[in-house]
Amino acid sequence: MKKRKVKVGIVGLGRLGYHHAKNLAFRIPGCELIAVCSVVEEEVKEVQEKWGIPYGYTDYDEMLGNREMEAVFIASPSAFHCEQIEKALKAGFHVFSEKPIGLSPAEAERVEKAVSRYPDQVFMPGFMRRFDRSYSDAKKMMDRGEIGDPVLIRCYGLDPAGQMDSFLKYAKNHDSGGLFLDMAVHDFDLACWFLNAEPEEVWAIGGSYARPEFAGLGDAETGAAMVRFSGNRMGIFVAGRNCAHGYHIETEIIGTKGSLRIGTVPEKNQVMIFNETGVVKQCVDGFLERFEQAYLSEAEEFIRCILEHRRPPVRVQDGIKPTLLGYACKKSFETASLVRMKSIAPAGK
Amino acid sequence: MKKRKVKVGIVGLGRLGYHHAKNLAFRIPGCELIAVCSVVEEEVKEVQEKWGIPYGYTDYDEMLGNREMEAVFIASPSAFHCEQIEKALKAGFHVFSEKPIGLSPAEAERVEKAVSRYPDQVFMPGFMRRFDRSYSDAKKMMDRGEIGDPVLIRCYGLDPAGQMDSFLKYAKNHDSGGLFLDMAVHDFDLACWFLNAEPEEVWAIGGSYARPEFAGLGDAETGAAMVRFSGNRMGIFVAGRNCAHGYHIETEIIGTKGSLRIGTVPEKNQVMIFNETGVVKQCVDGFLERFEQAYLSEAEEFIRCILEHRRPPVRVQDGIKPTLLGYACKKSFETASLVRMKSIAPAGK
Amino acid sequence: MKKRKVKVGIVGLGRLGYHHAKNLAFRIPGCELIAVCSVVEEEVKEVQEKWGIPYGYTDYDEMLGNREMEAVFIASPSAFHCEQIEKALKAGFHVFSEKPIGLSPAEAERVEKAVSRYPDQVFMPGFMRRFDRSYSDAKKMMDRGEIGDPVLIRCYGLDPAGQMDSFLKYAKNHDSGGLFLDMAVHDFDLACWFLNAEPEEVWAIGGSYARPEFAGLGDAETGAAMVRFSGNRMGIFVAGRNCAHGYHIETEIIGTKGSLRIGTVPEKNQVMIFNETGVVKQCVDGFLERFEQAYLSEAEEFIRCILEHRRPPVRVQDGIKPTLLGYACKKSFETASLVRMKSIAPAGK
Amino acid sequence: MKKRKVKVGIVGLGRLGYHHAKNLAFRIPGCELIAVCSVVEEEVKEVQEKWGIPYGYTDYDEMLGNREMEAVFIASPSAFHCEQIEKALKAGFHVFSEKPIGLSPAEAERVEKAVSRYPDQVFMPGFMRRFDRSYSDAKKMMDRGEIGDPVLIRCYGLDPAGQMDSFLKYAKNHDSGGLFLDMAVHDFDLACWFLNAEPEEVWAIGGSYARPEFAGLGDAETGAAMVRFSGNRMGIFVAGRNCAHGYHIETEIIGTKGSLRIGTVPEKNQVMIFNETGVVKQCVDGFLERFEQAYLSEAEEFIRCILEHRRPPVRVQDGIKPTLLGYACKKSFETASLVRMKSIAPAGK
Repeated sequence: MKKRKVKVGIVGLGRLGYHHAKNLAFRIPGCELIAVCSVVEEEVKEVQEKWGIPYGYTDYDEMLGNREMEAVFIASPSAFHCEQIEKALKAGFHVFSEKPIGLSPAEAERVEKAVSRYPDQVFMPGFMRRFDRSYSDAKKMMDRGEIGDPVLIRCYGLDPAGQMDSFLKYAKNHDSGGLFLDMAVHDFDLACWFLNAEPEEVWAIGGSYARPEFAGLGDAETGAAMVRFSGNRMGIFVAGRNCAHGYHIETEIIGTKGSLRIGTVPEKNQVMIFNETGVVKQCVDGFLERFEQAYLSEAEEFIRCILEHRRPPVRVQDGIKPTLLGYACKKSFETASLVRMKSIAPAGK
Repeated sequence: MKKRKVKVGIVGLGRLGYHHAKNLAFRIPGCELIAVCSVVEEEVKEVQEKWGIPYGYTDYDEMLGNREMEAVFIASPSAFHCEQIEKALKAGFHVFSEKPIGLSPAEAERVEKAVSRYPDQVFMPGFMRRFDRSYSDAKKMMDRGEIGDPVLIRCYGLDPAGQMDSFLKYAKNHDSGGLFLDMAVHDFDLACWFLNAEPEEVWAIGGSYARPEFAGLGDAETGAAMVRFSGNRMGIFVAGRNCAHGYHIETEIIGTKGSLRIGTVPEKNQVMIFNETGVVKQCVDGFLERFEQAYLSEAEEFIRCILEHRRPPVRVQDGIKPTLLGYACKKSFETASLVRMKSIAPAGK
Repeated sequence: MKKRKVKVGIVGLGRLGYHHAKNLAFRIPGCELIAVCSVVEEEVKEVQEKWGIPYGYTDYDEMLGNREMEAVFIASPSAFHCEQIEKALKAGFHVFSEKPIGLSPAEAERVEKAVSRYPDQVFMPGFMRRFDRSYSDAKKMMDRGEIGDPVLIRCYGLDPAGQMDSFLKYAKNHDSGGLFLDMAVHDFDLACWFLNAEPEEVWAIGGSYARPEFAGLGDAETGAAMVRFSGNRMGIFVAGRNCAHGYHIETEIIGTKGSLRIGTVPEKNQVMIFNETGVVKQCVDGFLERFEQAYLSEAEEFIRCILEHRRPPVRVQDGIKPTLLGYACKKSFETASLVRMKSIAPAGK
Repeated sequence: MKKRKVKVGIVGLGRLGYHHAKNLAFRIPGCELIAVCSVVEEEVKEVQEKWGIPYGYTDYDEMLGNREMEAVFIASPSAFHCEQIEKALKAGFHVFSEKPIGLSPAEAERVEKAVSRYPDQVFMPGFMRRFDRSYSDAKKMMDRGEIGDPVLIRCYGLDPAGQMDSFLKYAKNHDSGGLFLDMAVHDFDLACWFLNAEPEEVWAIGGSYARPEFAGLGDAETGAAMVRFSGNRMGIFVAGRNCAHGYHIETEIIGTKGSLRIGTVPEKNQVMIFNETGVVKQCVDGFLERFEQAYLSEAEEFIRCILEHRRPPVRVQDGIKPTLLGYACKKSFETASLVRMKSIAPAGK
């Protein structure tokens, strides 16, 4: 009478990887986490011991040799995504990969081709926001026509100021991809999803304000991009690494008959404090806190797709558009000019 | 072509009196402030000089001898209201009096009798909240049946903690009437107005929490009263002198089809601050800030009633019920028992 | 390397029982749901088949004979709690029981005694709100002194109007315990927890407003209770079954240095809708939606207590006080008088 | 002892003109409205009769011959502002003029020159938002450094959908100036004021969404402009004529240490409605409702400047920058290209 469970291995046990692993191990019906992989051996050991995971690896290729596994969950650093996706698909596994699916238009194209070669394997890119209840409710309202046709989307993606130091330290040694590629990709995905339109032209600006080091890195501390989509639909994107009040993800869609806003006050919980400061709502600290439910729901959906032999609602193509738009923003910011999307192509740059 | 103006004299130039005087002098169509009266001679002089007011008095009876005046505005300390109302009416003036119209059921009854003797003179007690746009909108919604029949009213009247010292100093030498009579009178008026019901029974509790001096005065720092109204309608009243975040006046009416709340966040203005504390709304400091528009509108209405020879929407009877309810709360608090309104009567105590 | 798991059986597969069972089956580290019990055989079959649960019972005593089980989760109708707790403890199991732990002071006393006889078995009553992040954060703030000493607590527990019909149907045939015992028990628990004080005296009022049937049942559609706690601390409780906007659980604690409110706007999610109506926040429908995280966290804590051989943070005593306070309210409402807690005792009635 | 009063004449008695006239007639200390002028004779008559205004004109030049007057208040249609300002200054009057001070860079330059020729006469352009308490508080907070250095400003200026028909009718026969010049001028003023920076480059996009007629007029129903200011400061402006929920004026300033938002929920008052829709805040209908206090305060300040012989806090130069920025947006929108501010000059076009 025991129900069948999908046996999963995960690569990457950093902050988000660890969280995904815990969800896969304990919170997802029909799922069994049997393998963990990280180049950091201690991480592997800790997780195996704490949660009783039978297989541990420090080598990804070795994990792919484990034939008990049916699916691979990729939560490694972005630079490895493209290759790890290709290898896992080739080895016959269902694959979930964190965003971005590639660090360049060319990589994104490679992933798309790989996925199309294995149509019977589930591939799902990690756009968890679509699974957040607020975002999915908003989408349903829009699909029911409650705000008419979408006219403009405004997206804020602001990281807490408290993480700026560690980011700057990291960015001195690694290519983060820059503000627009690294931070705004989720927002670009939401924009395409909500507007149901194609980006056509973009202007991106920004600078260093609190910390001059960003300019030295050729990056922006805070930046803004305006995008003209097909049908003259408008997109406004603000990304930043210096948000005083915490982790601020806000999305607004203005339609012909009404508007929706998600996350205007990025509240931590339902407590309202009244004191000599005034009336205060505390804010969320970071993505794990804000999107806890969404991360769980997307992993559940991935497992259900495998069990039910169906295609996931988020596909490889959904992973490509945001990457291209991120590239266009980066180029616009670096060249201080309007950039047409046509000039950015997977083959291009 | 000059329009007729009602010539007004005011008694009392304290915080609220000064504010009323300024409104009467400059902001009310059809009104001319020609006389000011206060036992503090400097206050009279200052106002006369600053605003060009022709007549100044330190003696109320003397002001009543000024036959250019048509109306008297009473904003003196509560203990004088009853007598000053009687005298002004007898002298033939229209009268506006700040709440309370009397410090005891007996005084309230005296005022009611005086008013009934001069039916052609306008008498209006000062319940400015009814003229506040939020409160008057709420009342209109209720009258349109938008929340069905009223079931319960909850009223908070909380004074800023910053004024506790000066109150304690004052209360050591004067009879403030106690928390329920002094503070909750406006709330009792709102309750009768919104519920359209008669109070029948009351229980009031409270104590000293931050400052033991209140117990010494036989008063409460913060108190709560629950009132059963006719038709089993319910009233909950919280009054206090130690509100950390400012001046908090909140009213909620729960109806059979919906609820209304007024002033839940006693916001100072429309600015929202996002900083390391969280998301902050600053709060109003006191009654002049919160009810600026209401004080102006009630004075306008008083003048219009005189010019148009009509009765004001707030009458002397409206001033009596809250006083009796305040008395019942005081008695309940002091005797630690349920008090029936029938045991409190104008002739009574 | 497999980690030890606590094997659990659950009794009651109604709305809340089903939800608990699903959590126990899939979402709780260290837990394995191996047995389900309900008098409704189809419920048992459905759950066994859907989730692959090996043992199914329609007889509680039979389930207690299953020696693979280590713990019993009681989510049956309230009338069975007392006896089922006693039996499960006697049979050697750890026990989690939904509130209330008894339908009378006498039953509550029986449970307390049973628990004290088996000190090595974990017993935890289900006050999930304490595990809700908003409530637990509020408690931490209070423990850090952020609002000074608590002065007053105000608790609203309002069920959606949409469920009034089914409640009235049910209540015609069953003893619900009445508004104050059935609905306000969670609020009474919160009051004792937050105020850290003993209830001393209570007055409860209420009535039928939208639906006269409540009066016929000797119950109230909406009611209010005011409680004087030790140290003159104040408690205000509003319970109702006719909330137009959904499920409204709100708690406010006023302290000497500030206030906290939890759940003032019982928002469904983070979407704000701007349309011709104004700015709209949608509200939660019911307890499973509002307290999803809390139900999960309390079950996690129960399992952890078993695994770690420690006592739970919520104890049997915590289940008794709210029951007594509910009784006092019921008595006050029925007798239309002030009721002293001293007159309500476990031995009593 | 009578205080000196500034005698004022007003031209324009449309919706805003009438409101200004009423303020000048009744609500402003030190001010006496003695003359009104409008090409619509009935408007003049109505106001004279209703408020007892001694002088009425249908000819502006004739009003300027009234030597009792000291100051002229210009609230006529935008096309007349430039010439009427010049004439009034030349005739020796203090002048207040509604925005815009000119319909083109050339007109703005003419006004600037005229003002500089009469340095002893007070000239004040009507940017009332600076006098709104929320905006002036926000400015003070910024000046105190509470949000650090400003990085980005976002301004929404959205007119109610209910006025779209009448606008379209009007715009078919008149040159409104287009969305960016007509609507966003107040926002451009706020941006310069809050950022304390010079606009350098702009991209404006937009279109017709609900109503195709806008495209036919060469105008946009809703539009967005992104502006790069000196120091890489960023400006985002959304203007529209189709706001479902009412009149939405919102401003956000993101600084290096925090952010401020003004008007995020354009609430009508402090009433919160809880009903089957959810929790609802009603919204303001239009500019007179939203900026009632600001219109009064700016007129008070104008009169005080005359009485106290000092220069107003808003000067002619403040009226010119927003006009130029509006022109740049219009040009960018029409040419679908980035526009540098240097290419827009008073002499230019």
